Amino acid sequence: MSTITREQLLHQLQWRYATKQFDPARKISAPDWSALEEALVLTASSFGLQPWKFVVVTDPAQREKLVPVSWGQRQVADASHLVVFALKKNFSEADVKAYVDRIASVRSIPADSLAPYNDMMIGSLFKGRDAAARKIWAINQIYIALGNFLTSTAVLGIDSCPMEGIDPVKYDEILGLDALGLATVVVGVAGYRAATDKYAALKKVRFEHKDVIVTL
Amino acid sequence: MSTITREQLLHQLQWRYATKQFDPARKISAPDWSALEEALVLTASSFGLQPWKFVVVTDPAQREKLVPVSWGQRQVADASHLVVFALKKNFSEADVKAYVDRIASVRSIPADSLAPYNDMMIGSLFKGRDAAARKIWAINQIYIALGNFLTSTAVLGIDSCPMEGIDPVKYDEILGLDALGLATVVVGVAGYRAATDKYAALKKVRFEHKDVIVTL
Repeated sequence: MSTITREQLLHQLQWRYATKQFDPARKISAPDWSALEEALVLTASSFGLQPWKFVVVTDPAQREKLVPVSWGQRQVADASHLVVFALKKNFSEADVKAYVDRIASVRSIPADSLAPYNDMMIGSLFKGRDAAARKIWAINQIYIALGNFLTSTAVLGIDSCPMEGIDPVKYDEILGLDALGLATVVVGVAGYRAATDKYAALKKVRFEHKDVIVTL
Repeated sequence: MSTITREQLLHQLQWRYATKQFDPARKISAPDWSALEEALVLTASSFGLQPWKFVVVTDPAQREKLVPVSWGQRQVADASHLVVFALKKNFSEADVKAYVDRIASVRSIPADSLAPYNDMMIGSLFKGRDAAARKIWAINQIYIALGNFLTSTAVLGIDSCPMEGIDPVKYDEILGLDALGLATVVVGVAGYRAATDKYAALKKVRFEHKDVIVTL
């Protein structure tokens, strides 16, 4: 039995919060981190196209350099792990082809048999949208991955913080992402809350159920 | 102990897939659905501002009307539950104030003490961005909710399908969302896979770990 109960799920989602102070001495175990990477890999996306890479920054010196371009937020250096959610720049028909080839390989079917699916994706993304619209589409998918990351960490009992308050251009420069054909969208850090993080004890604030859920 | 093991998490994320055929006879139990609504309410968002509503469409006649404006995809009518992830149109400084008031109420502190936080949010969202940029910001947050929804359903053992292939303008018309100050962004359906869904047996396709995870 690998499912969780609803009480467990809600307990963990209540437990999670945007951790401001991480305990720099407490690291996520290697097997737990591997599982989180695998959870990211498994994220759902439009057509399954996965227009992203997840950049895990492990070098402490580089992470320290990211602090000033993250409004001084220390999580960037202090959390156990940092992931830059990056989009593939110049996402092209070749990326669609790579995906079709991957389907063919995983499912042991001829790539030719996927021509209609390929054409449908090309039609939607390249005939139906310009580069700016494709970028927005890709960013949307990346936020699915961020949502998955936050929930996956929470159910494992690992703290996290989503971070939009960063300078993505400076991130790209410091990490050399441009040369990898990538652009920073958003950041997620994970680890364990510091005992001194005063935000941990604050009541979680959400609008009331009736103000968020509309039933028709 | 309410956390899940990494094996459970990965098993459930492997188990989930974009369900194409739902069993129309199998409904999500009321307590399970309540938990999923609560999971949605608990979704993280930028500053905690929750620029969304989740519209649960229960009327079968309305759901049937949504099928033709969803490229004929029957999930919209056949799945146990359908949620329209909608943004608050004309998101304004009043929405920020409502949130600040909510923080004050939940945490029993004077709203005045949150003036610096209020000003920071106003600066970022209203001085730093125009309406188009705010809309993109709101949509990004909504995709966090979609990611949370997909992972939350998966760990509960409930099938789901994210649906971008819909006509959002027609959704707004059919559901009367405009009058509620809402606009459709994306749809999520949930329920239980039909025994006849041939997609259930297909191998999940993701790029290889080395092509998705970059370690620096």
